[in-house]
Parts: sequence; structure tokens; C-alpha cells
Amino acid sequence: MQRAAALVRRGCCPRTLGPWGRSQSSAAAEASAVLKVRPERSRRERILTLESMNPQVKAVEYAVRGPIVLKAGEIELELQRGIKKPFTEVIRANIGDAQAMGQQPITFLRQVMALCTYPNLLDSPSFPEDAKKRARRILQACGGNSLGSYSASQGVNCIREDVAAYITRRDGGVPADPDNIYLTTGASDGISTILKILVSGGGKSRTGVMIPIPQYPLYSAVISELDAIQVNYYLDEDNCWALNVNELRRAVQQAKEHCNPKVLCIINPGNPTGQVQSRKCIEDVIHFAWEEKLFLLADEVYQDNVYSSDCKFHSFKKVLYEMGPEYSSNVELASFHSTSKGYMGECGYRGGYMEVINLHPEIKGQLVKLLSVRLCPPVSGQAAMDIVVNPPVPGEESFEQFSRAHKMAPDMFYCMKLLEETGICVVPGSGFGQREGTYHFRMTILPPVEKLKTVLQKVKDFHIKFLEEYA
Amino acid sequence: MQRAAALVRRGCCPRTLGPWGRSQSSAAAEASAVLKVRPERSRRERILTLESMNPQVKAVEYAVRGPIVLKAGEIELELQRGIKKPFTEVIRANIGDAQAMGQQPITFLRQVMALCTYPNLLDSPSFPEDAKKRARRILQACGGNSLGSYSASQGVNCIREDVAAYITRRDGGVPADPDNIYLTTGASDGISTILKILVSGGGKSRTGVMIPIPQYPLYSAVISELDAIQVNYYLDEDNCWALNVNELRRAVQQAKEHCNPKVLCIINPGNPTGQVQSRKCIEDVIHFAWEEKLFLLADEVYQDNVYSSDCKFHSFKKVLYEMGPEYSSNVELASFHSTSKGYMGECGYRGGYMEVINLHPEIKGQLVKLLSVRLCPPVSGQAAMDIVVNPPVPGEESFEQFSRAHKMAPDMFYCMKLLEETGICVVPGSGFGQREGTYHFRMTILPPVEKLKTVLQKVKDFHIKFLEEYA
Repeated sequence: MQRAAALVRRGCCPRTLGPWGRSQSSAAAEASAVLKVRPERSRRERILTLESMNPQVKAVEYAVRGPIVLKAGEIELELQRGIKKPFTEVIRANIGDAQAMGQQPITFLRQVMALCTYPNLLDSPSFPEDAKKRARRILQACGGNSLGSYSASQGVNCIREDVAAYITRRDGGVPADPDNIYLTTGASDGISTILKILVSGGGKSRTGVMIPIPQYPLYSAVISELDAIQVNYYLDEDNCWALNVNELRRAVQQAKEHCNPKVLCIINPGNPTGQVQSRKCIEDVIHFAWEEKLFLLADEVYQDNVYSSDCKFHSFKKVLYEMGPEYSSNVELASFHSTSKGYMGECGYRGGYMEVINLHPEIKGQLVKLLSVRLCPPVSGQAAMDIVVNPPVPGEESFEQFSRAHKMAPDMFYCMKLLEETGICVVPGSGFGQREGTYHFRMTILPPVEKLKTVLQKVKDFHIKFLEEYA
Repeated sequence: MQRAAALVRRGCCPRTLGPWGRSQSSAAAEASAVLKVRPERSRRERILTLESMNPQVKAVEYAVRGPIVLKAGEIELELQRGIKKPFTEVIRANIGDAQAMGQQPITFLRQVMALCTYPNLLDSPSFPEDAKKRARRILQACGGNSLGSYSASQGVNCIREDVAAYITRRDGGVPADPDNIYLTTGASDGISTILKILVSGGGKSRTGVMIPIPQYPLYSAVISELDAIQVNYYLDEDNCWALNVNELRRAVQQAKEHCNPKVLCIINPGNPTGQVQSRKCIEDVIHFAWEEKLFLLADEVYQDNVYSSDCKFHSFKKVLYEMGPEYSSNVELASFHSTSKGYMGECGYRGGYMEVINLHPEIKGQLVKLLSVRLCPPVSGQAAMDIVVNPPVPGEESFEQFSRAHKMAPDMFYCMKLLEETGICVVPGSGFGQREGTYHFRMTILPPVEKLKTVLQKVKDFHIKFLEEYA
């Protein structure tokens, strides 16, 4: 029941302010690279202000990159300028960014990407044949044999074929159709695109979107942007953050009083909680979605990050098909994966895909149309996705190598102090959602083992000291 | 007054249907790579249908990749299967995709990108030192020295510095501040992000967004997604598609009766029209925006595609500063550029930037927040943007090398016929907007000169035959 992201429980002092108040916003500008002091001259009232802006955007909160992260940027600048602190570097455990923490990219992946980028290298003897084979396959499928051409809006055909073949292998033969695969700009893009299509209605028939609490804050942000209704269901902390279907029932019944619950979002393995759902749990969720006529969104980006030997990842797609035709031909499902997590950790390329099941053909047309407005996902990210789903196999050359104290919520205050005193940057639990009166933080555990030991010792020392001071 | 995109006037037969009807949507699915026939079994009504979906998304039209382009995909598949046609290949003049048309990528750019992708190549003697220097600079600014890490939401610091230096050079010394530069996923991403922040209000105070007709259909699509009010101003076809400020006045006055006009979008050089605005015209537009309190959006992605010796590109930013402090400290402006156009034509990397002027510091915080929800733009696209604005300079090693016939609008019908009979894929004028009773198509002129001659001869022959048949 554990993963790269672990949520640690703790209790502390009084709560006051949300994370994106005014002083925080100016902190955003200040934390940026080049600082210029420009006196405000008398000027006309501006057109675009906090008062005149889109209120739905103003309501968005995104803690993974909120005030704590802005403060981390400020502290890094101060360290660079030689200002003394009780630590010498900021450790960013706020985000799952493996390579920024020193993980080296997978050589094979980068070799294929370099070959695709600069095809002159295809003649170089210092690249293995299996990497060249992958690169040629990708380039042949690109307009003008170049990563520099737009791809089809849905993504490069042969990459969608490779993704479908990967899903079929992963799910023990349950077939996947390339026509149901859409390549995306990271998983975030796919999730927000599907939600955008799903949201409709006004007043009591406004679309309700069920999300776990704690959640990954992309969900609440997009729900806010779309002016949809956020319907919280709480994960069971006392039971290793398990999903309980009775809690889903409670949430949906309550929601029906003020909106039209239409979408159920599942994050499995969990983010930020790291729990891995059992096969039985997934069956129960699918049955619930079928019963309540909910469109299922399965965020499965952490599918390769299951670390406990007691746990196994089951895809919603596979379980859906195993439950028989009543489910497999009726339940509408979109599932998401990404190049950013797993063993690759290629966050910067912004690669991802979604697979849709039982999507109405007319809606598929609408989806392609909507994607086409942004032309296509980055082709380099698509290529990276191809290699993630299509790694070297046995027999191939590369296989072997392979706002400060008193105005802050307690968890915000704790995280800010932790950062200021130790340089360790984590995310307050309020950014993911938590039960009233409980406080958490999320810390990603990507640093190398030796560094991690130091980090955890520092957290322990800080925590004891913090409790002494504020308990 | 001409550019890669030329809009050709023509007249023809009766109009009926918009481009995204039902049969078109299924065509979308059909045109995709792998076709599977799966009989529709009796099933429950689906949750997500054309009736239940987001009506704003349903209303989106995007002609650059609409039914004509889907048909082109079908015809290509038919050609691959050996079906005989009066032509042997489809020529895609519907979109500005230079490399897909055979333009070779710039060697220096791809060398830097390959070095960033696979830094082992930094030891290779076959890469020039100036390319290595650029790659090292970019990598040093990336988390973990890797393109695989997330960047800051606003983009990599040193790349924003390079963009600011480029703008300062371009604008003859008018200063640009890296803090005002936001790297984006192509220009489309920047434009939709700014519009998303700007839109607010309901009923008669709903935000009106002024766009040129004809426009690039990203604008109408995003306006529809955001449920904002599209306010058309017509470019003057009889005067080489010039922008006339009296027409802006007419449009804004009329719009005030039913919405709150808050944004003025300018595309210069024009897309699809190719016109280049004179300095005088830009001054008039800025004065108009100042007078009417409009937020200016300047889409300047074609700034390097000015081909007539009579024309010169002037940036809105530069003219704004030259008009004096009343304008330069009051008019709110966002301008956009991209890696996709110009001499680079690197569409697939989805790189771009926006520069904001006079944006309220609080709004800058909101902008960073909104961008942070999607984490960051593709880092490879950011790197490509860096090389576009930072090419080899004299003295550096690399410098020297450097829905068918009767159900269609007349222009849709014309373009469909043109495609079916000649293999030339263009975009109907209705996708960009045109005066009632006039019909156009947009054709990009990226094919190499020899191919272009053949293409234009084919268009001419087709046009004469078409008029004989349908006039």
C-alpha cells in the first residue's frame, strides 16, 4: 500500500487563509528569475484585474505548485546570492519529478529520441540497431519523416498502434483498439479534455464530478475552470486510504440534491495517498458506476509505481472486460497514462495517452474536433510515449543494459516552516483535500536512498522540534 | 501583401450545412488507422452523447482540420490500398506544416536538440562547438540537467532571458523583461490561456472578443469553448484585406448593445489573408484600444513570413512604446510567437511564447497559477524556441551553413471536389469567416517551387472545369 507519494498524518495549530491570496500572487511575480523594481506611476485602471477576471479561474487552487513552491524558488535565489540558511540546498519533494532529483534518463529512450531528432545519427555506429529500428518506425510515420511536422490530432498512427499492443499485453490479452487511443500532452491534458466534453447543464442539472479526497489537485482545478460541481468522496485513512463503495453511495446521494452527478474519477494507484486498489474494490466501483450511470475516469499514471509485494495493479479496462458483456459494452470509461511517472520519469516531454471505451462514435468525432483546435500533442512527447510502451525486448541489443505564519492554515504553516528550516519542499494536505480538523502533507520520495535517509532524519528532527514549540 | 497563406476569392453554388454534422463525426472514426467492424449490440443509452455533452464544445468549429481534412485521410488510405484516382498523392495545402511538405529542418537547431536529448553526444567531434555551447546552456538551466524534468510553469529561466533579448533586438532596443515572458505549448496554448483569464460576466456584461473576419479559427473555437461573445470586424478584401479602424468602431458600437467588448484580437501578418499591417495602421489600432479600453491580443506568429519588399513587420509592442508613456504604461497587451512558422517550421515541438505588457501583478500570479495546473510546456519545445530566438551569429562555426455534394456549403463543396479530383487539400473560407454571399478558400503555399507550379496549374484547370459544370 505504498508508492512514491506518501501522505503523512500530523496535527497542528490554527487555520486561517487559502493559498492564493493577493500577497501570494505578488510572490509569484517576485519569485521569477529577473527582478526589476518599477515604481507604479499613476495610471488608468486596468482592464484585467482580480475583480474583472474570470471568476472560475480565480477560484482555481493548485497546491502542488502553490505558495510553498514559490517560497522555495525565493529561497533558492537567496542561497545563490550567498544568504546563509540552516541548510545549503532546497530539496523539492513536492512534485514527482524524478530526473530533477537526479534519476538518470533511460539510455535507450534518449538514444531513440536523439535519432528521431537528428536523423543523420542513423548512420552513426555508436547507436544500437534496436534504437535505430524504433527511430525509423517513428520517423516513417511522421509527415515529411520529421518530428517537426504536426501529427494527426489524435496522435501518430503507429504510436497509437504500439500503445494498443502494450495495453493488450498488460491486460493479458483483453484487446485494445488503436482507434480508441488518443495521444495527449501529458495525462493532465487528456483528463481536462474529457472533463471539458462531459460538463453541461445549469442549476441543479449542472454536471457533478466525483473525486477522491485527498485528490491530485488537477481535478479540482479543472472542475473549477469548467464551473462544474465538485463532489467529494473521502478515502478511508484508517484503512490505508482505501476506497469504500459505501462512501461513494453517500456522496452520490447527497450530490443528487444539488447537481447531476455524471462522472466518477478514480486515481489508482492513489495520488497523493499511494494506495493500490484491490481487484474486488475495482469491481465494486465499476458496478457502482454502472448502477448510477456514471462516466468513469481512471487515472492510472502510477501503474508502474507499485512497490509492495502484497499489491498488484489491475487496470479498470481489464476488470471491466472480465465482468462480462453487460459491463464491457455499457460502462463508458476513459483511462490515462503518462511518460512522466513509472521507471522513465520523462516529465519534460509532456507525453501521455488516453484509452476510451464505449465512447459514442459521434462523441469520438467531437473529441477529435476539440483536440484539433490545439493541432496536436508535442510529437517528441508522442515518440517518448512510444518507447515507454515499446521497450527493448529479450534478444534485442539494448535489452541487457536496460503567506506566512499566522495567516496560514496549519498544514501550510508546517510546510512553510519545514521548507525555511530544512530546505525540504513538500505540499500541504489542504491542496489535495482532507477531512476537517486533520492535517497532512505530501512528500514525494524520489531522492536517491542515501539522500532520502538524510531527508527523513531532517523531517523527524524538525517534527519533534515543531511539536515542542507549537503543540 | 502576401504570405504563405493566400486567400483566393471565388464564387459558386448553393449553401446548406455546417462542417461537423453527424456523418462527419463517424467519418472521423473511420479515417483512423485501424478499422474494426463491431456490430452495435443492444445497449443502454450512453451517458455522453451529442445531446448530453458540453454545448459550448459542440458549437466549436475548426475548419483547418475539419471534414475536408478527414476526407483527405480517407483518400490517402484508399490510395494506399491501390484504389485508382485521377491523382497519385494528396497534397496538403490546408495547414502551414512546412516539414510535412518536404522542407528540411535547420541542421543547427536539430543538432542542439539532439545534444540536449542525449548529452553523451557532447563528447562527439561531429557536432559543432556553437551547438554544444547552446545545449550546455539549456541543460544547465533544466532540473537535473535534463529535458526530462518539469520546468517552472512559466518556462525555463534562461530561455525566457533569451526570448527577451531577442525581442529587444527585434524592436530596435525597446526593452523586454524576462519576467513578462511565458513559454507556451505553441502559440495556440498562450492565446487560449489569456482568453480564459479574460472572459467573465453574464448576459449583457458577458465578455465580447473582437476578431477579424476572416480569422484563424482557433479564435472562434476558444470563444465558443469559453462561452464568450464573438464580435466580428471585417477585413477589407477590396483593399488587400487591410484592417480599417472605422470598421473596428462600427463593430465595437454594435457589440456594446449586447455584451461587454473587452478584448481586441489582431492577427498580423494576417492568417489566412497574409496582409501585413502598416505602422500607421498599428498606431490607429493601439489608439482605438486605448480609447475603448480594450485588452490587445497580437498574434504575430507570422512575423518572419513577410515576402513582399513593400512590406515590413512592426511589432505591436514596439509601436506601443514609440507612442509614448500614456500608451506604453496603460495599454494591456499580450503578443504571441511560435516555433512552428518562420524559417524553422518546427510545428511538431509545440513551442511558443507570449510577452505580456502592463499586466497587473496580481493577474501575473493568476496566470502562473493557471499555467501550473498543466505543470509546464514541453521542455523540448522550449529548447526549440530558444534556438529560434538565438540562432548562430557571425563568427560562430554554424553561421555560414545556416458531408458531400448537395448537403454542403458552396465553398465546402468546391474544396471537397478539388480534393477528390486533384488530391489538393485546402480549407473552405467558411472556416475562417467571410462576408455573406462570398466564398473563398485558403491554401498554404509551402510546397517546393516546382511542385507549386504543378499545383497551381491543377487548381486553374479544376476551377475552369468546375465553373463550366456548376456556374
